[in-house]
Amino acid sequence: MKKICILIAALASGFALYAQEVRYYNAADLTVIGKAIPTSKDFTRIDTSAYRFSNEIIDDFACHSTGLAVLFATDSPFIKARWQTSPANASENMTAIAQKGLDLYIRQDGEWVFAGVGRPQMDKGPEYACHEGTIVKSMAPGRKECLLYLPLYDRLDSLFIGVAEGSCMEPLDNPFRYRIVVKGSSVTHGLAASRPGMSYAARFGRDNGFYCFNLGFSGQSKLQEEYARYLADIEDVDAFIFGAFSNPSAEVIHKNFDIFVDIIRESHPETPLIFMQTERRESRNFDTWREDFEARKQAAAEEEILERMKTDKHIYFIPSDDFLGDDHIATSDGSHPTDLGFTRMLDSISPKILKILRKYGIR
Amino acid sequence: MKKICILIAALASGFALYAQEVRYYNAADLTVIGKAIPTSKDFTRIDTSAYRFSNEIIDDFACHSTGLAVLFATDSPFIKARWQTSPANASENMTAIAQKGLDLYIRQDGEWVFAGVGRPQMDKGPEYACHEGTIVKSMAPGRKECLLYLPLYDRLDSLFIGVAEGSCMEPLDNPFRYRIVVKGSSVTHGLAASRPGMSYAARFGRDNGFYCFNLGFSGQSKLQEEYARYLADIEDVDAFIFGAFSNPSAEVIHKNFDIFVDIIRESHPETPLIFMQTERRESRNFDTWREDFEARKQAAAEEEILERMKTDKHIYFIPSDDFLGDDHIATSDGSHPTDLGFTRMLDSISPKILKILRKYGIR
Repeated sequence: MKKICILIAALASGFALYAQEVRYYNAADLTVIGKAIPTSKDFTRIDTSAYRFSNEIIDDFACHSTGLAVLFATDSPFIKARWQTSPANASENMTAIAQKGLDLYIRQDGEWVFAGVGRPQMDKGPEYACHEGTIVKSMAPGRKECLLYLPLYDRLDSLFIGVAEGSCMEPLDNPFRYRIVVKGSSVTHGLAASRPGMSYAARFGRDNGFYCFNLGFSGQSKLQEEYARYLADIEDVDAFIFGAFSNPSAEVIHKNFDIFVDIIRESHPETPLIFMQTERRESRNFDTWREDFEARKQAAAEEEILERMKTDKHIYFIPSDDFLGDDHIATSDGSHPTDLGFTRMLDSISPKILKILRKYGIR
Repeated sequence: MKKICILIAALASGFALYAQEVRYYNAADLTVIGKAIPTSKDFTRIDTSAYRFSNEIIDDFACHSTGLAVLFATDSPFIKARWQTSPANASENMTAIAQKGLDLYIRQDGEWVFAGVGRPQMDKGPEYACHEGTIVKSMAPGRKECLLYLPLYDRLDSLFIGVAEGSCMEPLDNPFRYRIVVKGSSVTHGLAASRPGMSYAARFGRDNGFYCFNLGFSGQSKLQEEYARYLADIEDVDAFIFGAFSNPSAEVIHKNFDIFVDIIRESHPETPLIFMQTERRESRNFDTWREDFEARKQAAAEEEILERMKTDKHIYFIPSDDFLGDDHIATSDGSHPTDLGFTRMLDSISPKILKILRKYGIR
């Protein structure tokens, strides 16, 4: 009988340890970074009440939490989360973790090291938009500085971060310096990244300590004036990086490019504008129509940029020849770079962009 | 009036061109490769009526079309597909294209070059299991040799490949040589590959011209006797590659390893058995419980292998230290290598495995 009592006590003690009390904090009360201009909603990257766009898709994307992250410090042995997204199903060319999930990094010896993901509960069906999970557990004692990337390709209606009752939980100052706006298409949006923190904009910022804003708009980034006006309104921009030539046709590039730059230049007269050529899509490999369309698009982009560079000394152009390698394996669907594609792209663009930024004292 | 008639005729002609008649062929009547032992169902990798497994998950995975591909030649300007999978929703750490989609390669100058994907129609909801789409279009005239990988992580109930009416469509002889069985866990299954043809087993086979069979069983690969008996029954195996130490605990490795090898050795006495150490999981970065569990697992694997190598001269061990790099970005969720992780893994294992295979005349 005594043995049974000891066993029960041991089990209860184990259960108490396992079922350690969790206290949830509203992430909006911590440090939320990634909004180029403040918004009224907690996790929305652009305020659609202040900026009206020409179609509902752009409005929807403006409300995504793309590029946003939460900074906090805690000494909890575990980090959990409860969050709510839209009920939309995952796009077929990206993981649900990237679309609707969370991606945690912890600072270790000055570097942000991957710690764990928040997995959206897709097995409950697409109408189920409330997610809950443990991101990391069994951590050694001590204060951890945490960087939690929010869903790349969905809206985030709420987020609560759970830590052990009694452990500290405090907002962390934004450690990222300079303000670099990254505007582009689905590639910038991070469509085929495996996790929210794996978009090229997030990686470029994390790797170099820069404060990057992700303004990728999948399929909707056609050098429209409405974007240019938003970009013109952003204050204290140190550099703009553009993946601007993936969505518009050659004709649209010729029609829109100068107006787009003119509007930005009204309020950012000498800020470096770094335009990347669109990557060579793998869908060109055998599709002759796509080959022609993409080649004309790339030629139009180069023509417009080179012409503008004659009169604007703060515009730069980065060719894309080596963005994806030559083995045709770096996209998820022929268009969208995977983590492998982004790694190759960053290997190509990072030294070139860093060299440009150094000219402006950004390092 | 005449002008209007010409316009209408031109439009009709354009429409006829656009709406070119499609003829669908049952893929089962073409060349289906990837079954180590023939099965009664068209696109099932293991016949569960002949091999009974100890749980329903394994039975389900045995029916996946993992590693299977269809070989055919056509001179059609486009390739379409209609296919049916299970209604299960996509796993949150992989793309739906990898799980339920199709992945086409066309031979060009002796190499298999990516041509396009068949996108499962996830936007219709998870209960919708019938998919239809164009994989590639607008191709230049000429006969194309095609390799179409089937869903990595789902069963495939039917597949019809559509080409232009009047174009040729014929089965293509299997060009892959030797018979290499790859048995493992979710990593082998290809869980976080972006497309069906991007699992490491598919890439190793495609890159080297080897006929590889994918026997990855996500989370269920624990050196069970039932697998060993299946492996023992496969005829004419030139080499076995094992990713065998990801799923079992240290205790299970010690308990099962020798029995597993004994059963295979009964019918494959001198076939090379190439065991890869399990990769260092990124979930160890901050989780002390996981760190201990994984370290003990890796130690157990190394101990068993090295002991067995003393008496079996055809067993090989490949350490995993450099499988994922040291920047912690090569997995989708802390456990599963993405295309970036698989690229690093192949950079590490390919030269080592090729060197072993050359000793057996396999090149």
